[in-house]
Amino acid sequence: MADKGAALIIGAGDATGGAVARRFAREGYVACPVRRSADKLAPLVARIEAEGGRARPFAADARREDEVRALVETIESEVGPIEVFVFNIGANVPAPILEQDAKRYFKIWEMACFAGFLSGRETARRMAARGRGTMIFTGATASLRGAAGFAAFAGAKHALRALAQSMARELGPLGVHVAHVVVDGAIDTAFIRDNFPDMHASRRPLDGLLNPDSIAEEYWRLHVQPRDAWTFEMDLRPWMERW
Amino acid sequence: MADKGAALIIGAGDATGGAVARRFAREGYVACPVRRSADKLAPLVARIEAEGGRARPFAADARREDEVRALVETIESEVGPIEVFVFNIGANVPAPILEQDAKRYFKIWEMACFAGFLSGRETARRMAARGRGTMIFTGATASLRGAAGFAAFAGAKHALRALAQSMARELGPLGVHVAHVVVDGAIDTAFIRDNFPDMHASRRPLDGLLNPDSIAEEYWRLHVQPRDAWTFEMDLRPWMERW
Amino acid sequence: MADKGAALIIGAGDATGGAVARRFAREGYVACPVRRSADKLAPLVARIEAEGGRARPFAADARREDEVRALVETIESEVGPIEVFVFNIGANVPAPILEQDAKRYFKIWEMACFAGFLSGRETARRMAARGRGTMIFTGATASLRGAAGFAAFAGAKHALRALAQSMARELGPLGVHVAHVVVDGAIDTAFIRDNFPDMHASRRPLDGLLNPDSIAEEYWRLHVQPRDAWTFEMDLRPWMERW
Amino acid sequence: MADKGAALIIGAGDATGGAVARRFAREGYVACPVRRSADKLAPLVARIEAEGGRARPFAADARREDEVRALVETIESEVGPIEVFVFNIGANVPAPILEQDAKRYFKIWEMACFAGFLSGRETARRMAARGRGTMIFTGATASLRGAAGFAAFAGAKHALRALAQSMARELGPLGVHVAHVVVDGAIDTAFIRDNFPDMHASRRPLDGLLNPDSIAEEYWRLHVQPRDAWTFEMDLRPWMERW
Repeated sequence: MADKGAALIIGAGDATGGAVARRFAREGYVACPVRRSADKLAPLVARIEAEGGRARPFAADARREDEVRALVETIESEVGPIEVFVFNIGANVPAPILEQDAKRYFKIWEMACFAGFLSGRETARRMAARGRGTMIFTGATASLRGAAGFAAFAGAKHALRALAQSMARELGPLGVHVAHVVVDGAIDTAFIRDNFPDMHASRRPLDGLLNPDSIAEEYWRLHVQPRDAWTFEMDLRPWMERW
Repeated sequence: MADKGAALIIGAGDATGGAVARRFAREGYVACPVRRSADKLAPLVARIEAEGGRARPFAADARREDEVRALVETIESEVGPIEVFVFNIGANVPAPILEQDAKRYFKIWEMACFAGFLSGRETARRMAARGRGTMIFTGATASLRGAAGFAAFAGAKHALRALAQSMARELGPLGVHVAHVVVDGAIDTAFIRDNFPDMHASRRPLDGLLNPDSIAEEYWRLHVQPRDAWTFEMDLRPWMERW
Repeated sequence: MADKGAALIIGAGDATGGAVARRFAREGYVACPVRRSADKLAPLVARIEAEGGRARPFAADARREDEVRALVETIESEVGPIEVFVFNIGANVPAPILEQDAKRYFKIWEMACFAGFLSGRETARRMAARGRGTMIFTGATASLRGAAGFAAFAGAKHALRALAQSMARELGPLGVHVAHVVVDGAIDTAFIRDNFPDMHASRRPLDGLLNPDSIAEEYWRLHVQPRDAWTFEMDLRPWMERW
Repeated sequence: MADKGAALIIGAGDATGGAVARRFAREGYVACPVRRSADKLAPLVARIEAEGGRARPFAADARREDEVRALVETIESEVGPIEVFVFNIGANVPAPILEQDAKRYFKIWEMACFAGFLSGRETARRMAARGRGTMIFTGATASLRGAAGFAAFAGAKHALRALAQSMARELGPLGVHVAHVVVDGAIDTAFIRDNFPDMHASRRPLDGLLNPDSIAEEYWRLHVQPRDAWTFEMDLRPWMERW
């Protein structure tokens, strides 16, 4: 059993989720990173342990209610109370509306929003009963406005933001801090390096890409805000970003 | 075959959808109201015909891709080109987040958003090919902000607005006018009369409830806007509404 | 004395203000266009009269409280009750923040916002007392977001929108309809023709510029909306605009 | 000369401004609190010095361009480079629009917005030349929406937000971090204690009022954000606030 409890990170397959897991582990929380295949979490767990932290990886499909229920139940009974919840599943697959496939439109919502509802509700039930906890949802520019080619992704991110905002209004007075972070700009990931090598090469040396550790630091900060001054929403973007 | 083509109204089961169908029929369009059970459309069809218009009712579940495809195909081949598309399915069922049922959360999105994507995309393909047409999505206050008890409905309406906005940006330059109307206030319906009799009795004589015919008039106006000055978004509320 | 009363247009020096004045004159209102120099209004007045309408031009600096008071008093006593009020003064002069002159920053606010407060308040006092009337404020994209080079103009337009929104909430229940129209795109004016000749030449034949008459038509429509379904805010942009 | 430079706080007459001054002084910056009467700053300066920090109070009317110029020049030449700028002047004086006085409307804008432009521009010129610095503007709920009785205050706060957003877009790529903090809720001040004693008594023991020190902590955090992940906007409200 951990002294500080568990930090549940849904969507720990990317750089951001991993950095968040490490950041909370560093503070004494047992990081519980979740992705569909637990095997792929082995390097993250190894790194957390090498840094002196504790981690317990979980394989779960957050779009399945039974798997989410079992996940939360297992963590609460075997690891400790979930004190921090981070929903970080993305699904940014653009397509012109005329060519958008119904299965893909559905899947983008299922991953980027419905999984957030399932895991968020399940966690909120535990946190509300205890009257404490922090829930952070990762947003994007598409959370705030639609754009050509982004009907599906913007739809899912808008819906996730509405979920977070409704939860914040409902759960705040119960002692649970719900926040939504709008990440506006490219994150320094393998994906960007491999797919946009020129942008990566020109921006990275200038701090023009969001460092996942910087995002994780802000998530940590949200967690330790005193309850007289909670943030529901904040944006994050590199200094040189045009917006 | 109609001279003016077809006006497809998805979600014609309520007062608003019916008023919209009648308004476009009055201008020479063949009103094609759609709801799951066509039987229930008989009174609306009778009224349209009594007013000198034409109507062709359809039974379809707009959440099913095959039904939507067949619907659009049938109208285009048997009635005429769809010149007007109105998506008007609502699903305002509030619930505290801690008690929200996953099936219900899903269903609210499926009805209020996914059906809009399926029918909107299918219609847009026809309209974009012709370089003309009007698509109107009915929004609500919940399209713009979340609220306690409204995680599901606000999520679906936010997603629908993001769909409409993305479509407007994409399809405008192709000649298709996409609009989103934020209806903020109670509409004068049997539902309000039966469930909120006091509010109905006090407000109706003062024009304090939105008249479905007034909403329909605005939808008609959007359709006839010249293309140099198209509206994407407008709100509608009674004069005495507190907001 | 006019049967229908007066339509007061503050900022009638541009194409939009002129078109609005003509539109309301066509419906039987006495158009009262206002700009600093009444001489320049002569062509507009002549055109309105040639179209069979009535107009009474006024010279006033809407930034001066005494002039605004005298203006409203004169119209109400000599022309008729002000049934329509349109605030249409713009002041879009971009400048980098580091080079922005304090006098210019002030003047942009004074013209695009303070004049709207002075003339709006003065008119609202009359309308509220009668329990009827329509007040329309012309907005812009800068009403909704700041941008590089637009600190002054966006500031003034944001402030004007806050004024309109506050007035709408306050005056709606008193029977006065307040609206804000976000004009997003270039208007077909002499200014655009002379300063952006290529854009003008390529867009105008395609309806790619907002026609002032189209804007005026929407203002008229707002005026005749029944009070059960009033619009506070709507946007207008050409079909081919990228946004 | 300070090693870390100066922290200029315009509007240090209230609890928030004072807390911010103390927070930056604690980190080695010379706090330069500004209000119209320097005498009233004596207790703040004494407290900062008692806490081991350094302060240099200034009397200036931030609505006067010459005073602002002299202020910035004096600090830069006598204290050190301005590394942090906080604009914190409020002017929340509600009034119905029909009774709003023109002088008061003007003054609210002059204090809550124009002073922010003057001091912000003057400081930005120094910071942009150095390619570094943090500028924070204190916002409010009225920065985001108008309300009955708040035409003047919402106008000024909307305009200030547009200023901050325009500056952020312009100055970010020059290395200057501009942020806007939306404070939504009552702050624990003498004003609240004296004017709303019941609210103060019931909320304060529950952390239901924003602690000025909590706000100051967030301002400090914004200052130390690495430039790959800058926040432009965040909100702050007590956990129990209804919104």
